[in-house]
Amino acid sequence: MSSAPVRPPRVLILGAGFAGLAAAQRLKNAPVEVLIADRRNYHLFQPLLYQVATAALSPAEIASPVRKVLRNQRNAMVMMDEAQSVDVANRLVHFENGVDVEYDYLIVAVGATHSYFGKPEWATLAPGLKTIEDATEIRKRFLLAFEQAELESDPEARQRAVTFTIVGGGPTGVELAGAIAEFARFVLPVDFRRIDKMTARVVLVHAGDRILPGFPEKLSKAAHEQLERLGVEVLLNSRVTEVDDKGVMVGSTRIESSTVFWAAGVQGSPLGATLGVPVDKSGRVPVNPDLTINGHPEVFVAGDLASVVDPVSKQPVPGVAQGALQMGRYAAEQIATETVARAKGVSPPVRAPFIYHDKGSLAVVGRNRAVAWIGSWQTAGFIAWLIWALIHVLSLVTFRNRMMVAWQWMWSYVSFDRGARLITGAGDVKLTQPWAPSRSLKPSPPDPVRA
Amino acid sequence: MSSAPVRPPRVLILGAGFAGLAAAQRLKNAPVEVLIADRRNYHLFQPLLYQVATAALSPAEIASPVRKVLRNQRNAMVMMDEAQSVDVANRLVHFENGVDVEYDYLIVAVGATHSYFGKPEWATLAPGLKTIEDATEIRKRFLLAFEQAELESDPEARQRAVTFTIVGGGPTGVELAGAIAEFARFVLPVDFRRIDKMTARVVLVHAGDRILPGFPEKLSKAAHEQLERLGVEVLLNSRVTEVDDKGVMVGSTRIESSTVFWAAGVQGSPLGATLGVPVDKSGRVPVNPDLTINGHPEVFVAGDLASVVDPVSKQPVPGVAQGALQMGRYAAEQIATETVARAKGVSPPVRAPFIYHDKGSLAVVGRNRAVAWIGSWQTAGFIAWLIWALIHVLSLVTFRNRMMVAWQWMWSYVSFDRGARLITGAGDVKLTQPWAPSRSLKPSPPDPVRA
Repeated sequence: MSSAPVRPPRVLILGAGFAGLAAAQRLKNAPVEVLIADRRNYHLFQPLLYQVATAALSPAEIASPVRKVLRNQRNAMVMMDEAQSVDVANRLVHFENGVDVEYDYLIVAVGATHSYFGKPEWATLAPGLKTIEDATEIRKRFLLAFEQAELESDPEARQRAVTFTIVGGGPTGVELAGAIAEFARFVLPVDFRRIDKMTARVVLVHAGDRILPGFPEKLSKAAHEQLERLGVEVLLNSRVTEVDDKGVMVGSTRIESSTVFWAAGVQGSPLGATLGVPVDKSGRVPVNPDLTINGHPEVFVAGDLASVVDPVSKQPVPGVAQGALQMGRYAAEQIATETVARAKGVSPPVRAPFIYHDKGSLAVVGRNRAVAWIGSWQTAGFIAWLIWALIHVLSLVTFRNRMMVAWQWMWSYVSFDRGARLITGAGDVKLTQPWAPSRSLKPSPPDPVRA
Repeated sequence: MSSAPVRPPRVLILGAGFAGLAAAQRLKNAPVEVLIADRRNYHLFQPLLYQVATAALSPAEIASPVRKVLRNQRNAMVMMDEAQSVDVANRLVHFENGVDVEYDYLIVAVGATHSYFGKPEWATLAPGLKTIEDATEIRKRFLLAFEQAELESDPEARQRAVTFTIVGGGPTGVELAGAIAEFARFVLPVDFRRIDKMTARVVLVHAGDRILPGFPEKLSKAAHEQLERLGVEVLLNSRVTEVDDKGVMVGSTRIESSTVFWAAGVQGSPLGATLGVPVDKSGRVPVNPDLTINGHPEVFVAGDLASVVDPVSKQPVPGVAQGALQMGRYAAEQIATETVARAKGVSPPVRAPFIYHDKGSLAVVGRNRAVAWIGSWQTAGFIAWLIWALIHVLSLVTFRNRMMVAWQWMWSYVSFDRGARLITGAGDVKLTQPWAPSRSLKPSPPDPVRA
C-alpha cells in the first residue's frame, strides 16, 4: 500500500452493550487495535435488569466488568468514559473528560433509553429501567411501598401505597408487572402483619390492543391470561395522560397509585444526532444496508441506536439483544475482512447487506409462566419458562454470573423468596400506628414495670 | 395482679444490628410484644462490609431483611424508621416521621459510627465504612482509581491515583489495606494494560505503636508482617493531620494519594445523648452493670453505643459483634424473666450484672493470611484464615447468604478475582491518552504467587 510504517487500523467502539462487546470480541484475531469505551466499567445483561428491580438478583450478578471480559484479548484496550459527540469529517470522538480520540473505523453502539413522549418531568415520578441505578431506584420504591403500607393506618393511603402502575406492555412491562404481583402473592403473607396479598394491586397500562406486540397474537393472549391469573389488571388501548406523586390519569380514569414505573417508548442516545445525518423521530439513526452512515463507510451504527430494515423480511430489525449482537458482529466482520484484504494488497470485497436472523422471542411472566416463539413453534407455560431460564442463564457473559444466577433462581424457586431485598439510599416511610398488628390501640392498663 | 385486662408488656428495640436482633430473637417465647425499629429494612453483617467495599461480595450477600429473619416470630413487629429522641420520663420514642411510640421496656441498640476527631469536613474526602452506602462509595472510589490510572499519561497523577491511604490500624483498616493490596497484586496484571502491581501503593496509617491493638502483641506483629509481605506500607505512631483531594499529611510528611479511606475512631449515635444521662467523650452511654441507665431499670443500652466495664476482667467490653450479641441477649433475658415472674405474681429476681464472655478474636489480612486469638491459643496464617472464613460464613443470619458467600469465596479463591467489580453512581475519570501506540504489549512477567 505505501512505504510508510504501517500501524494497525484503530477501531473505536462506543458502548459495551451487546453490540459493542460482540464487535470487540469478533475482532480478537483481526490485525487491528481495538479501543472500547463505555461510561460504565461493566457490560450489563439488560434482559434480566427487571430481576434486580424486583429484588430477585443483585446488580453484580448481571454485570461483568468489560476489562475482565476482554482480559485475554491482547489487541483490545478498555476505557471508561462517555462519548459526547462524533466529528466524522476529522474521524475524531470527543469524550466527556475533554479528550479527543481518533479512529480509522468507528462502531457507535451506545443504545437507547425509554421515552416519556415529551414529558421528561415524569422521569422522577415514574422511573424507567435501563441502568443499574434505575433498577435499584425501582427496587427501593417497590420495597418501600410495602413498608409504608404496613405501618399506615389510613386505609386509602395504604391502598395507594401498594397500588403499582406499570406503563407499557412490552416485555419489560410484562416482566415487571408479573414479578411485583408474585412478590405480593408469595412474600407479603409471611413477612408482613397488616397488609396481605389481597391489598396489593398491580395495574399494567398498555397503549396498543394487545400486550407483547412483537409476539404472535396467540402468545400475547396467553401472557395476558397468565398476568390476570397472577392478579394483574391489564388495561389495553389505554394511555397515561397525567402522572403525579399520588397516582396517574388513564384517559379520564384516575388510578390512586404512589408507585409508577415506566416501560414504554424508545429514545435513541443523543450521540446519534452528532453523526451529521438525520435521525428519526425516536432519535435513532437510519443506516445503510451495511449499517454505515451515508458517505462514511468507516462509521457503523449497531444495536438499539440503529434503525435498519431487514432486506429479507422487509421488517425493521427489532431492538432486542439478538439484533444488537448480530449487528455488532456484522460490523466487526466487515472491518476484519477489509483490513486483512488491504494488508494483502488486494481489494476488499463489496459488503453484503446485514441480514437479521431471528432466533426467536421469549418473555417471562412469573414462576412457571412464560411465552416462547421459536421459528414456527409457539408455546406458553412451564416449558416456555424453562427455555427462558436456560437461555438466559447460558447467555450471561461470565461463568461466575451463570453460576450465581442459576443458584439464586433455584433457591428462589424452592423458597418463594427474593435474594436482594435491600432498600438502599434514603427512604421516606410515613407511618402512624406502629404497635398492634390486628387491633386498635387501647389506653394502657396498669404498667407492670411501674407497678 | 389486678382486675384490669392485662396486655403484654411492650418491648421497643431501636436498631436491628447484632444487639437489637439478638434481643428480639431471645424474646421469641416471652409473653411480650416486640417492636423492632431500624432506619434500614435489613440487618447488616458488618464484619464483612469491607468485602463489599473491595468488590468481593454484593451488598445483598451480607444483608438480611429484618422482616424475613423475624417472619416466624409472631410476637414481633418490624418498623422501618429512625428514632430521633427518647423521652424516658414519658416512656416514648420520637421517630423521624413524626410518630411517637410508647414502650414498657426499651432496648437502645443503635450503634456507633467512626469519628473524624473534630474534622467532620474530612468525611467526603476520606469515607468511612459503616453502611452499605459507605461500602459502595468506597468500592466506587477504589475501582475508579485504577480506571483513572490506566488512562492517565502524567506519571505523577497516575501514581497518586493508585496510592491508597487507609487511616486506622484496627481490624477494619487492616482488612481494607490487605484486600486492596491483593486486588493490585492479582487483578491488575491481567486486566489492565499500563498499570501493574508495581504501580499501586497501599499505606496504612496507625496512631498507636502496633496495629490490631486489641490483640496480643505477637499477633499484631504477625499481621504487620503479613501486610508488609503483601506490599502494604504500615506507618506506626503516625497521625493524619491534613486531608485534601490529592493526599494527606502524616505529621510533616506529605503522601500524594487521591484515595483515602477512614477506619479510625468511634462515635456513638447521637440518640444516646437524648437519654438524659451524660455520655462519654465518644458519645457512648455509660450504663449500670445491668446495662440500664440510672433511675430507669426499663431502659437498656446494648451494643456499640453502651460503655460498660466487665466486672470479671475489669476491662471495657470491646465494641465487637460478640459483645453486642451478648448484651442484646442479656437485656432480653432480664425482660423475659421479669415478665414471667410478674405474670405469676412473684417478685422478679435481682438482676445479675452483665458479664462478657470473650470467645476470641479474629482478623483477616488476605488470602491464607489471618490472625486468631481463641482463649489462650494464638495462631497466624492459613489455619487462622480457615477459622476466620468458617466462622464468618456460619455467623451469617440466613442460609441463603451462607451459601452465597461460601460460593463467592470458593470461586474467588480459585479464580483470584472479585465478584462485584461495579462502579455505580457518577464517575469522574480524567484521562489523557486513550490509544497506546507506545504501550508494550508483552505479557506481564509471571507472578511468583500464582506461578
